[in-house]
Formats: sequence, C-alpha cells, structure tokens
Amino acid sequence: MSVPSGLPKMEYRRLGYSGLKVSAISLGGWLTYGGHVENENTFACMKAAYDIGINFFDCAEGYSDGESEKIMGQAIKKFGWKRNDLVISTKIYWGAAFGENPINNVGLSRKHVIEGVNASLKRLDLEYVDLIYAHRPDRDTPIEETVRAFNHIIDQGKAFYWGTSEWDADEIASAWRVADKLGLIGPIMEQPQYNMLARTKVEKEFQHLYEETGLGLTIFSPLKTGILTGKYNDGIPKDSRLGSSDDPWVKSMNERFGDEAWKKDLDVVAKLKPVAQKLDISLATLAMAWVLKNKRVSSAITGASRPQQVYDSVQALSAQEKLTPDILKEIDGILGNKPAAMTRRFN
Amino acid sequence: MSVPSGLPKMEYRRLGYSGLKVSAISLGGWLTYGGHVENENTFACMKAAYDIGINFFDCAEGYSDGESEKIMGQAIKKFGWKRNDLVISTKIYWGAAFGENPINNVGLSRKHVIEGVNASLKRLDLEYVDLIYAHRPDRDTPIEETVRAFNHIIDQGKAFYWGTSEWDADEIASAWRVADKLGLIGPIMEQPQYNMLARTKVEKEFQHLYEETGLGLTIFSPLKTGILTGKYNDGIPKDSRLGSSDDPWVKSMNERFGDEAWKKDLDVVAKLKPVAQKLDISLATLAMAWVLKNKRVSSAITGASRPQQVYDSVQALSAQEKLTPDILKEIDGILGNKPAAMTRRFN
Amino acid sequence: MSVPSGLPKMEYRRLGYSGLKVSAISLGGWLTYGGHVENENTFACMKAAYDIGINFFDCAEGYSDGESEKIMGQAIKKFGWKRNDLVISTKIYWGAAFGENPINNVGLSRKHVIEGVNASLKRLDLEYVDLIYAHRPDRDTPIEETVRAFNHIIDQGKAFYWGTSEWDADEIASAWRVADKLGLIGPIMEQPQYNMLARTKVEKEFQHLYEETGLGLTIFSPLKTGILTGKYNDGIPKDSRLGSSDDPWVKSMNERFGDEAWKKDLDVVAKLKPVAQKLDISLATLAMAWVLKNKRVSSAITGASRPQQVYDSVQALSAQEKLTPDILKEIDGILGNKPAAMTRRFN
Amino acid sequence: MSVPSGLPKMEYRRLGYSGLKVSAISLGGWLTYGGHVENENTFACMKAAYDIGINFFDCAEGYSDGESEKIMGQAIKKFGWKRNDLVISTKIYWGAAFGENPINNVGLSRKHVIEGVNASLKRLDLEYVDLIYAHRPDRDTPIEETVRAFNHIIDQGKAFYWGTSEWDADEIASAWRVADKLGLIGPIMEQPQYNMLARTKVEKEFQHLYEETGLGLTIFSPLKTGILTGKYNDGIPKDSRLGSSDDPWVKSMNERFGDEAWKKDLDVVAKLKPVAQKLDISLATLAMAWVLKNKRVSSAITGASRPQQVYDSVQALSAQEKLTPDILKEIDGILGNKPAAMTRRFN
Repeated sequence: MSVPSGLPKMEYRRLGYSGLKVSAISLGGWLTYGGHVENENTFACMKAAYDIGINFFDCAEGYSDGESEKIMGQAIKKFGWKRNDLVISTKIYWGAAFGENPINNVGLSRKHVIEGVNASLKRLDLEYVDLIYAHRPDRDTPIEETVRAFNHIIDQGKAFYWGTSEWDADEIASAWRVADKLGLIGPIMEQPQYNMLARTKVEKEFQHLYEETGLGLTIFSPLKTGILTGKYNDGIPKDSRLGSSDDPWVKSMNERFGDEAWKKDLDVVAKLKPVAQKLDISLATLAMAWVLKNKRVSSAITGASRPQQVYDSVQALSAQEKLTPDILKEIDGILGNKPAAMTRRFN
Repeated sequence: MSVPSGLPKMEYRRLGYSGLKVSAISLGGWLTYGGHVENENTFACMKAAYDIGINFFDCAEGYSDGESEKIMGQAIKKFGWKRNDLVISTKIYWGAAFGENPINNVGLSRKHVIEGVNASLKRLDLEYVDLIYAHRPDRDTPIEETVRAFNHIIDQGKAFYWGTSEWDADEIASAWRVADKLGLIGPIMEQPQYNMLARTKVEKEFQHLYEETGLGLTIFSPLKTGILTGKYNDGIPKDSRLGSSDDPWVKSMNERFGDEAWKKDLDVVAKLKPVAQKLDISLATLAMAWVLKNKRVSSAITGASRPQQVYDSVQALSAQEKLTPDILKEIDGILGNKPAAMTRRFN
Repeated sequence: MSVPSGLPKMEYRRLGYSGLKVSAISLGGWLTYGGHVENENTFACMKAAYDIGINFFDCAEGYSDGESEKIMGQAIKKFGWKRNDLVISTKIYWGAAFGENPINNVGLSRKHVIEGVNASLKRLDLEYVDLIYAHRPDRDTPIEETVRAFNHIIDQGKAFYWGTSEWDADEIASAWRVADKLGLIGPIMEQPQYNMLARTKVEKEFQHLYEETGLGLTIFSPLKTGILTGKYNDGIPKDSRLGSSDDPWVKSMNERFGDEAWKKDLDVVAKLKPVAQKLDISLATLAMAWVLKNKRVSSAITGASRPQQVYDSVQALSAQEKLTPDILKEIDGILGNKPAAMTRRFN
Repeated sequence: MSVPSGLPKMEYRRLGYSGLKVSAISLGGWLTYGGHVENENTFACMKAAYDIGINFFDCAEGYSDGESEKIMGQAIKKFGWKRNDLVISTKIYWGAAFGENPINNVGLSRKHVIEGVNASLKRLDLEYVDLIYAHRPDRDTPIEETVRAFNHIIDQGKAFYWGTSEWDADEIASAWRVADKLGLIGPIMEQPQYNMLARTKVEKEFQHLYEETGLGLTIFSPLKTGILTGKYNDGIPKDSRLGSSDDPWVKSMNERFGDEAWKKDLDVVAKLKPVAQKLDISLATLAMAWVLKNKRVSSAITGASRPQQVYDSVQALSAQEKLTPDILKEIDGILGNKPAAMTRRFN
C-alpha cells in the first residue's frame, strides 16, 4: 500500500529540554507488535509510519514478552533504514512480566536495569537505543541506584537519553535531586497516559516540573484505547482489539465494558461528536489534535493494526489549527475535567 | 484555672529527621490569638498549654494581621518562660493578607522572606524563632531563591529549622534538589491539613518523601475546624466560631454549611459516634488520637478558645492505646477514604 | 537426590539499602567448594540449593586457592542456569593466600583489585559478578584508592555492587566519606561473622551504620563452624571437617579444641539444647533461625558438604516464628552476651 | 605561692592536624572548678598553671551546673590575662544535667548547640572559645545537623575549632563524611579517657582515624581519677575527692571502691611502684609521662585542687625521656592490656 496523496506534512518537536527531535506522532509497540497482529502486518504499519515521516518507534521489554522488540529489530533490517534516521526506545521494569522468575528480573535495581537493557538490545539486534525508560517507579530500589544505573547505560553507549513512565511528579523531582547532586544526567522525558479523558497528571501534577526540569512528554493512549474514536459507542465491534483478542490483559479490559466509568466516558464521546462534525474531522482526529495542541507533548504514541490507521493519524497535524480558543473552551465544557489552575499569587 | 488532676503525661516527638523535640500536641495561633478571642483568654490558653507540657507554639505573619505574633510574644514575657524551653514558629508568605500592598509583601522572594522574618521577630519581640515555614508555595519565585533565602535566615541565627506549609510533594522534592546541589539545608517539616476526613496528602502524596527526605509533619486541623467534635451535627451552635464571628474568612466558611460535602462529612461523624462511645472517649478525643497514631505526625496543632479545650486535647495521648488495629480497621471502613497503598513489586 | 516435600518456602530480602533481592539463606564456597569436598558432591549441593530457591552463591578468590570459583562457574554451565536469576559474589584480597608472590597479589591496591577481579571472572567464566567484596580491610592502601578501584570495577560492568568483609565500623564510614566526597558508589554490604556466640560487631559496632549508610549484612558462620549444631559436644566426630581434613587452616582449628573458649562455647550449646527441644527443632535450626530474626541480616551464608544439609538449613525459615520475644529473652539469658544498648538520651 | 624553681619547661604540641598549639599538660574544670574546691583555691590553681606555661583551660557547660565556666571567666579577668595567649574550651551536650527541662536542653540538636554555646559564652563572659566540643554523641540527632550547627558556631566567630568527646570511631568518621560532602569543617580533636588502665579507644579504636582525619587528642583522666597515683592503695584517704565530697557523682564512685575491677587496678598500681622507684619518679609522674609518650596526645588534661598538684604534674615532661623502649616494654608486661596491633598484611 502506498502513501495516500495529500497527507499533512509531519511535524517534529524537541524532546523536552534536549536537542533530540521526535515526530509529533509516533508508533508504539504495545499489544500490536509481536502480539495479536501478524508480523507482516506489523512490518506494513511500520513502513507506513516511516514513509510519512514518523521517526520515533516506541517499545518495551515487557511488550508481548519481548516479541515486540524482536519484530521492531527485524523491520529496521528488512527495510534497510539508516540507524541515525530513527529514534528507537525501549523500557525496563517488567522483565518477568510473562512468567520468568520475578525476584531480580523486575524493577529498577542496577542488576535488572543492566541485564534488562542487554537483553533488549539483543532482541532488537541493535547496539543502542536512543531512549531508555524506567517503565514504572520501583519503590523498593533507592532512586540513587536507579539514576546511577541509567547513567551507566548511557555511559556505556547503550542509550542516549533516559526517562520515566508513569512516575509520580515528586519521584521525577527526586531523580533530578540525585542526578544534580552527583553531576549525573536526569530523566528528560516521561511517558504518561494523556487524552481528553485523562488530564490531571499532564496538566496539573507535572506542571511545576516543566519549568524546573524541562520535562518532555511522549504520551500514550491519546485515544484512550480507542474509546475516543467513538467506535465503542455502538457496542464493541468485532474487528477491534477488545472484541477479538485472547490476550488475558485484553480480556480483563473487556470486563470494563459496561461499568459506570465506561458509560460515563461514552457519554462524553457522544457529546464530542457534534464538535467533530462541525469541524469536519473524525472523532479520532479531534482527539489526537487536541492532545497535540498541548505543547508539552513532544510526541503522541499511537498504536496501529492497519497501515490506514497510521495514515489517518496524521490528519490531526493539520486539524490542530481548527482547535481555536473558542473550540477548546467548548470542549472543556463538555469534558468537565479541566484541572483547576495552580494557585498563583500573581496573575 | 489550675491544671486538672489526672491528665495524661505529655509525649514528645522528634520533628522529622532532626534533633528537635516537639510536644505531640501543640497550640496554634490561627484565628484564636489576637483575633476574636480576647487577649486575657489567649494568655490563659497559652498558660494552660505550657502547664501541661506543650512546648511548641505555632504562629504566622498572616494570622490576624500580625496580632497573633504580638500576643504570643507578650505571653512569653508575661509568664517569664525560658526561651530554650520553647519551640516557637512563624510562617512567611501572607505578609499583606489584610490590606497591605501585595506587590512585594507576599510570597517567597528573597526580599519578602527576609523583610517578613524581620517584621515577625519584631512583633514577637524575639531574637529568633525555632521554626520558620514557607506558608504556601510561591510559583512565581524560583525554588532556588526561596531555598537560599531560608538558609540565609538560618545562617543569620534568626531561625533553627525551616519547612513548608501546604506544598505539593514534588515542590518539596524540588526544594531538596536545590538544597543538595548547593550544599544547603532542606525543609525538614511540612504543615498540612490532616484529619480523618482529609488523608490523601499525608498518607499518599507525601509517602515517598518520608524515606527520601525524612520529612516531619506538624499537622493542622486535626478536628477539621471542629466538624469532628460532632458539635455541628445538630446545626451550628451559637457559641462556636462559625456561629459568632464577623471575620470574613469565617463568614465564607458559613457558606459551606449545608453543601453536599459538609453533609457527607456530618454523616461520617454520626457513624463515628458509636465507636467513640464504645471506647468511652469523646469524638474529639477519638479524632485527635487517630491523628497521633500516625507516627509521621510530629505534632498535631490545636486551636483553643478556652483553657478547658487545651486540657481536653491531651486526653488523646492516653486514648492512642485504645485504637487497636481492629478499631482502626473499623474506622477505615466508616471513613471509606483510606488511600490505596502505593504499588510495590515486592512485599 | 530430589527435593524433599514440605520444605518451607524461600524468603527473599533486600540487600541493605539496594534494589537487589537475595535469598535469606545462601550457599558459600568457603572450605567446601573445590576443597576437601569432591566436585560431584559440590555440584549436588549447589543444585539442591538452587532447587529450593537459593539464588545467592558466595565465593572468594582466596577460597581453596581459586578452585571454589572454578567449580561454581562449572556448576552454572552444567545446570544451564540463567545468569539473571543468580546472585554471584566473589571477594578480593587474598590473591596469594596459598603460595603466590605476596608483594602485589594481596590487598586492596588498584592493581590487585583490578587484576584480582579479572582473574576471578576468568576462573568463574563469567562476564560479571553481582557482588564484589573487599575481603579484609587493607591498612596499607589509602581508602580512597580502594573506593575508586571498586567503582572502576562497577563502571566496567564487572560487578553491580561492592561491599566489605570484616571491616571495622569506622573503616566502612570512611569508605562512605570518600565515596560521598567524590560522588562515587559506597559499600552497600558487609560480610561479618554473626551467630549466637559472636554478636558484638553486628549488634553493637555496626549499629550507627545501619541508619547512616543503609548497610546490609551477608553473614557467615551462622553455626560457628558447626559448634552450634551441638555435634562437638561429645568430642570431634570423625566425619566432620575438623576431624578429617589435611587443610592447614582446619588443623589449626583443631588446636582450638579443648581450650577455655571452646569449652565455654560448648557449655552454652548444652544449655541451648532444652530450648531447641521445647520448640521441637534441631539445635542447628534454632541457631540459624535466631540469626534470621535479625532483620539487618540480608542473607545467612551456610556451607554444606551434603545436599541434605542444604535442605535442613531452610527449616530455619519457618522456625523463625517460634522465636517469640519470650523465647528470645530466654536465649539471651543463656548466651549472656547481649550487647548493652547504645546510650540514647531520648526513648 | 610562687613557682618552684627547677621545673621542666612547658612543651607545646599541635592540636592534631591544625595550626593551633596547646600545652602538653592542661588544666580541666571537671569537678574541681566551681564545685567542691573553693573559688580562691581555684584561682590559685589557675594562676599556678598559667605561670608554668599551661595555655589550655578546659571546661564544659555541664561541669558543676555551669559554675566552672563562671569561675574560669572570672579568673581570666582577675589576672588580666590576654585573650590571645589562652586556649579556652567548653563542651555542649549536658545543658540540663542538673535539673533543667531535658526536652531540648540536652544533646546536639541545632537548637541546643546554638543556645548552649550562647549560654556558655555568657557564663564565661567571653566573645568566643577556642575549642568547642560535642560532649557526647547524640544518637537522636542526625550527624549532619550537628556538623552544620558547630560550623555555624565557627562561622559566627563564637569558636575557632570543634571536636568531640567520647564519640565512637565510626561516628567521628561519619562526621567527617558529612563535613567533606558539604565542604564544611570536620572535628579536629577528640577528648577520650586515656591512661595506663584504659588504652583500647586511643591505641586501637581510633587508630585508622589518625591518618584519615588527622585527629588530635586532648585526653582526660591521665591518672584515672587518682588511682594511678597510688594514693588509694592504702584505702581512701580523707583529703581526697573520693573521701570527702557530697557530690552525688563522687558518692557513686565511692561505691566502686572495693569491687573486683577496682582491686585489679590497685594490683597493677602496686606492681608499677618498683618501676617508678627505679626511675626515681613518683607514680603520678610515671603515669603522666607514659601518657605523654603517645605522640597522638596533644594535651593531657589534669585536675588540681592545690597549686602544688599543678607544679607536680609538669615533672612528667622531663620524665618522658626516662621511658625508654625497654621500660615501656616492662610496663606493657605489667599492664597486660596492650591492644593487639591492627592486622596488617605487610609489616
């Protein structure tokens, strides 16, 4: 499948307070690589992404028990992409997510960070990743040990930058405390969930950090696992991940279907539909464009099980200009979840 | 009024990870000193507190427009107390809470921290306070400037320790980051609200900080401005602060009366009553003892408008032993607000 | 020999203030590996240990002149164990314990630390150990040189953590002084002797270090080379190490037999026997469980010359709960060697 | 009373690794100043000391409830001594040793160090002391807080150097760790007991510190409260402190009289007598000279209740040369308490 004509041009953003540029839209390997999507399909999605200018491909040791990393590594070889044109990430924490001995194969001890990165690089068949993330906070390991371990990875040339995923704001600040004290490199990016239905962490909790540390964001779930596309508003469709997978995680998500929070989310989506129609864009494009309007977002990571989904995603780039202050205000009214501004003594 | 016989013995606790000892129950000057309670009455309350072993008296530049500090200083002189037996605090931020030019008389700039402390010491007629607090975070002042300013106060001998009040966890961590980087003294204590009805900050948000920084807590509103005494469960009594004051802040609190959150609080209090009866203690004693059971609490600051209230408060010291694990579990069930434990991979 | 049914489940503990988890009971290579126990027997002991969840195997360059390291490395290969599931240690100091030129093959100079580690890794046929110990203090080498050398080992990826063995408390504190000053990694664990008959170092000398540095302990001789099993109370048995070995060190130990201290130890053991009988456990289990009750102990290193000894050792895990405060008090009375608590002015 | 003729010339030694010179023999205020010796007598002793070249006068806030400091300050004024010719010390810890509220008037918190020094300077009527000691370790105060507090005292010009008294070796090393990390001044001297009958701390425990930190010693009890003079070998004389005082501390010492350790000490003293006779010096001079032979001793602090005792003490200066290696070996044989040399791998 070749790139459709007329797609908006890719936009590149600095990754927080660093010199690295990442595509504003990126492709993530969660669930979709090495998992229920067949390999050829995954290759096709990655090629589609690359062809439209996506340079950032996100992965983790815990995705599909390491299979995601293997497929990603194979794709890079298969298409003969130049390493320096790519921004490749992986994440360390869930080294034993799928059945291995959890004693020292999980978390952020020096042992697992180093052993985990070595195993990931082997699966990816790469000498280094660009970005290495701490996939969760590990409250059983001193933050100093973790900061030192990721700096060791960088010193060894096995990664260029390190960051966090789903850490609390004060844990990120504590990591910077240690890094500063020791003259080491602090975490430059965080990977949180961020979308119209989950705003608090990005818009409130992390607020002080942006200025203090220059924190950049590579956000996941911009469409909240598809809810914001509106596709679940008429029941779970058969061809969606939620309808079809045997994956235990997906099955457990199915159980959410029908609960109160789920219904409340669908109500909001229903109210957003007229806004999307008025702007002449799809609900998915509206949701993605809304995320990109937040300039703290360096990249929005999307999943894709078909190349067309990749192509569709970039419509959000040009749709950003349709989100005028008035429209954003209207959306805030529908969402009803805008965090109160931090108290400031002086406005 | 002399000290009633048979009161429990005062308990002293380390103020976080410091060498200072504060009485587990302390007396605060918010609303009550220099404000609607007349001076002689304030002197009587302070004497009652001193007589039963309270050594920590808490104040702020913003309390009653500075009048609280004046009365507290007068009491120390009037009773001839030895300075080294007392732990005196004040707080800087609201230098212009009641009418002064707010441009530079508010917040945590070096200028206001230093000018504010000097003015406070003058009102207190003391050479130094033991504890100096940043009364709120000031998001218009770089944290480094504030950390340096409080270290200047300590270096000048005008305070022994500094801390924060109502800061977010990541702001406290950021202050420690700056302090560590510069080899300066970090904030050793935080003064948050903490009571049965407001637990999240102390039991969840600050959780990582306790180990990372040794943070100590001097908590306010252990009775949530009286709600937890049960006195509002039959309407606002005429002799309470809420019924009688002309203070604009109190008037605004009156407006809370009758709203949904207020009613929900009263419902909880009603359900706590049988627990208190079963333990043969008052609701106020139950609420205070519950706060003291949390060993992160170095001191619970109480207000008092009558000496008898001071004497009553220390009943909580001996009541702590009645709060067995089973009783605490029962209370958690009634409160329904126990923060989920932080995810830990290893137990 | 297969694992007997009904053994207690292994317990894992953090290694001091680090993120690494070690089995509470571990297997050490002192005397037994590569020495007087034949190789097949050693393999059988290691397999028995692995099968019951022991993940920490302790070694040293000086054990049996390097043979211990060789056998341990062979076992890992022979059984196909995954490297990341194991915690392997070795120790540097006695590089020339058995005949080599002692001038620069002994101690903690940068030269011997690096050359020694390289030789150990070669014997172990591993790329790295998890833990590297300074096997003794070297008072002829500046502590700074030693701290820098062990950090070099860690930076080179040849070890994850470093620690000490039989250092004095102030030497450990001095190592931390150097580490802090230079922003380097300090020693996180110490390996002292610890058992019912030797308590002073662990319970008194190191006491300040636990809070100051988070020091973890991997203790050796929990049974005091077998004395606490009671097996010497009727004379030296023929099948014990003391009765049978030609090893010069063992021979020198034989000379201890019959001296005053030895007799005094046996008297104490005789008095402990009724306690063990009352609890329905063996003397060895009592002694091991007693060590594990001290939560500063991350791991108790046992030796074993037969798989059954390994299986027996874990009985101590479940026996811990039998050591109630009353029983511990009774044992203290028999031992008569409980160090006086450190003077504290405030309790 | 005028200075006898023919006294040896005073010897001055560097105080550890500092630029300060102290007389090898100094005068201490423990028990004797402001206590059971009458003031005029104290003045006479101080004058005798000054006249023979003693420049170091040692005091503490806890000696005789502050009276020692007052008398010492009066003596300086009375005799018109120049401040710069004197080395004056005091010690902080026991601020409430004699009846004051102990909550915050004891120990090494920032509050008590600063308040304690201010009170001491007031009693001494001096602007500064030369040396300020932490009179005991305070295990309830973080060492960092104490190190910062003593540096504050030095920064304020209230003392020139700070040190410790009766700290453990690892606590001194920890203080240096903090001082180094923060770029602050560490403790340069320690004040332990040291005499023929108490050698372990000085000759063994502190051994590593001498090279690591340059620790200097101002030792107390060179005659072990008089035992080494031989005066108790015929029972407690009526004119000694032990025989005459009402001081509760002295009374408790009386209870030691007759116990096993006391008898053992007297036996040793009896055996030392022929050595002293052979050298033609008194037992007291032998004991004092023996202490001074240890070059780690910067100053030996003596007490005195009569000027003659002061004059007698300096006989030890010239007696040092009589203590040849052979004599020292003979003494070691009698004492039987020479600590084993630290294990060194290389002799």
